[in-house]
Amino acid sequence: MTDPALTLDPRSARVLPPALFTDLYQLTMMHGYWRAGLHEQTATFDLYYRRNPFRGGYGVWAGLGDAVTFLERARFTPADLAFLADTGLFPDDFLAALADWRFTARVDAFPEGAVVFPNEPLLSVTGPLWEAQLVETALLNILNFQTLIATKAARVVGAAASSPHGGTVLEFGARRAQGPDGALGAARAAFVGGVTSTSNVLAGARYGIPLAGTHAHAWVESFPSELDAFRAYAALYPDATTLLLDTYDTLASGLPNALTVARELQARGHALRGVRLDSGDLAYLSRTVRARLDEAGFPDVRIVASNDLDEFVIESVIREGGRVDIYGVGTRLATGGGEGGGALGGVYKLVALNGEDRMKLTGDPAKASVPGLKRVWRGEGADGRLVGDVITRDRQTPRAGEAVSDPTNPLRRITLPEGASWRDPRVTVMDGGERRWSEPLEAARERARTDLQRTPEGTTRLLNPHLYRVSLGAALAEDRARLMEQLRARMGGT
Amino acid sequence: MTDPALTLDPRSARVLPPALFTDLYQLTMMHGYWRAGLHEQTATFDLYYRRNPFRGGYGVWAGLGDAVTFLERARFTPADLAFLADTGLFPDDFLAALADWRFTARVDAFPEGAVVFPNEPLLSVTGPLWEAQLVETALLNILNFQTLIATKAARVVGAAASSPHGGTVLEFGARRAQGPDGALGAARAAFVGGVTSTSNVLAGARYGIPLAGTHAHAWVESFPSELDAFRAYAALYPDATTLLLDTYDTLASGLPNALTVARELQARGHALRGVRLDSGDLAYLSRTVRARLDEAGFPDVRIVASNDLDEFVIESVIREGGRVDIYGVGTRLATGGGEGGGALGGVYKLVALNGEDRMKLTGDPAKASVPGLKRVWRGEGADGRLVGDVITRDRQTPRAGEAVSDPTNPLRRITLPEGASWRDPRVTVMDGGERRWSEPLEAARERARTDLQRTPEGTTRLLNPHLYRVSLGAALAEDRARLMEQLRARMGGT
Repeated sequence: MTDPALTLDPRSARVLPPALFTDLYQLTMMHGYWRAGLHEQTATFDLYYRRNPFRGGYGVWAGLGDAVTFLERARFTPADLAFLADTGLFPDDFLAALADWRFTARVDAFPEGAVVFPNEPLLSVTGPLWEAQLVETALLNILNFQTLIATKAARVVGAAASSPHGGTVLEFGARRAQGPDGALGAARAAFVGGVTSTSNVLAGARYGIPLAGTHAHAWVESFPSELDAFRAYAALYPDATTLLLDTYDTLASGLPNALTVARELQARGHALRGVRLDSGDLAYLSRTVRARLDEAGFPDVRIVASNDLDEFVIESVIREGGRVDIYGVGTRLATGGGEGGGALGGVYKLVALNGEDRMKLTGDPAKASVPGLKRVWRGEGADGRLVGDVITRDRQTPRAGEAVSDPTNPLRRITLPEGASWRDPRVTVMDGGERRWSEPLEAARERARTDLQRTPEGTTRLLNPHLYRVSLGAALAEDRARLMEQLRARMGGT
Repeated sequence: MTDPALTLDPRSARVLPPALFTDLYQLTMMHGYWRAGLHEQTATFDLYYRRNPFRGGYGVWAGLGDAVTFLERARFTPADLAFLADTGLFPDDFLAALADWRFTARVDAFPEGAVVFPNEPLLSVTGPLWEAQLVETALLNILNFQTLIATKAARVVGAAASSPHGGTVLEFGARRAQGPDGALGAARAAFVGGVTSTSNVLAGARYGIPLAGTHAHAWVESFPSELDAFRAYAALYPDATTLLLDTYDTLASGLPNALTVARELQARGHALRGVRLDSGDLAYLSRTVRARLDEAGFPDVRIVASNDLDEFVIESVIREGGRVDIYGVGTRLATGGGEGGGALGGVYKLVALNGEDRMKLTGDPAKASVPGLKRVWRGEGADGRLVGDVITRDRQTPRAGEAVSDPTNPLRRITLPEGASWRDPRVTVMDGGERRWSEPLEAARERARTDLQRTPEGTTRLLNPHLYRVSLGAALAEDRARLMEQLRARMGGT
């Protein structure tokens, strides 16, 4: 066993994996490309996903900052090479070549926080084949995960904000996240997706995400009585106390004790900040607690609710008149569990080699890739709302009246409308292996917020959303059909 | 933003989070305990879960090695303290106390790889209240995640092994795992749960897990023809080549080309190792491919299958006569997606303070904790099979004929059988903050294997399993009922 070097990036202040974080086959293929003298061929790989997470109408693209930092820094250390030598799969001459390996390619991508859709190239790597091949695993890992969580966050935040009284979201999933770094990545992505704060102190330190928290049941149980415990916490943080009401009984014990403390704080010139509900019927309890707080003259005490929340539970609490101000969301936000299955199925496919189109057919036609160098165009109507995305060949632009087709079914065609303006939303984030793009996390968060507002009506609906149209330009669809025929014709032959 | 120190543990060779990886409220509560002079009180917290993951009959306990290393090393660096000062929540005197903070408590736990069940204390921390409080977040994070994945792995491996022809599992979920470290933790836990190998090179380097892999579609597309691509790979690894058959068409193109290469290798004194199916009807394709390989004289060429597999898909492939030798399992293994929801809901509850029992009631009686210092006993029948687990007060042992009760429902009682031998399966893994336990990962893997074999019939069934009995000893159940009454009686009072 070796000790691969770890990198703590001073920019994103995140632990990044070494180049050795890859699938074995990337290295055996690199070896093969190198041995055959094919490794310097110019390849383009597209990264995309086929279905929106959570059966929703969109994705929120996240993780790009981390991905670029990984690409900038990926190297093989002497310890890494010694480990690879020990596997018996890699001869010395190839390992010597790996010692000098670095990523020198170009990367074009949607900027972080952009709202994105299935079957469009979210990120494209263009450069030497063996470079583009190695980084597949890490790119997919970082971008799949953070995009999944940012999307979940946008859904949860949207549900919370749909209350007539407003509502915000606190991410506190660290204890259920997939490992310590999974918790950090989730906190980062959830912030991009719109959450207001996190309970994760390390995420606050690394990313500057606002921290929030209350106290636990153990605090209450550590004092002779619940009231003693509440008083002790309020004495410590007289202007920043949120009391957890359900250690013994929310309405019979927690709330009366909290009201006592609220009055005591008021008498001393302070104010109880909030109360937290963590079990029971949150709609009923929040209505009741709100009414009693208001009657007692505490309309500004906020109600925090938690307990296995997700966007659907939040919607149901609001539908039943619940009066929650802040939703603490843990497990399902930090892991993307539930409908999302805990993973986004992003893929990374070779689409061009030495200027020639490449594609993969497989048994499932819907999984066939879209070959070639491409551009993505995002259309905006006169009202400022998005009208759809069109993917064209590299040097083409969408034309009003053009018949464009669905990437998964060429029979589904639409005609591009008059009066839309088309813009390429992607940016060159790396060139020659150097970073060409950098922005604070807040900029990604703001992009997500404004992009979501610009989507067509129904796109952000949680269930059965409007399906945003991503289409292939006419020439690209024709080229793809032609290549598909050629591949089928020569199938099996040499 | 600060730069919290990161620790690369030379023993487990894993990146560990700093002490700052905790929820904000742990620190505000620590501050409160410290301010009130309560921080040195001796507390016991129990870590347990309430439902087996994946609606199954057991859990495979994993992550303990990482958790102990975290506890040994958790410290607050000057940069951490500077960040905490910046939050405005922590005065200098408390931060000065934190500078000297370290974990000095005792930890009793099931050894890693043990098969475990709901509502039994898997790990108990006994020591100063503020120490036990801080580490809740990291302990739950590490142990919830790795136990989830080890359990999933055991299910998947069990399904693969149920074929009359045998079958093993390769973990290759890195590209869909929750962050780079999530992929490493998943590879580690999956190995404990019984997988044979991983594609994750970094996991191989860090944990010594055997590496395996094939090649990707991009390899095939990078050559003039599929046969050229197969020949090039076989030239590179003449005794370690597994060819991916479905880039164009599995039966019409991939298989005939693989047979050509198999014959060419044979003529040169080598042997094709395997072929891989990655799309289509795996039961039909694997039967057909097996028959054609056998007819052609290649009975030793292994069939690897992949494509969104989990334990249920594997069972169905086997049920339909599929002839897969190695299942490559990615997303659902590395994230515990599907029925598991991507998370195990382990909790960490205060059960004793200064020798006195503590418990939490809440609105949901099934969520009430089991108070007090306890021991876990695992019963073994004369046939060597487990008969059930019993939790007793600290100084008690189970007695034949004792009426023991279900932790979630005191009305469900059973009588302990004659002739069972009872053993405490937990070990003291830390004492005085020092590690008292260490073992190679292979030992945990072997423990999981043998423990699973000893479970009662039906416990490892994937759906509607036999429910292994975990019971409270008579005295513990009585003490709990009495404390519950006392708490209810004084509810709302001071």
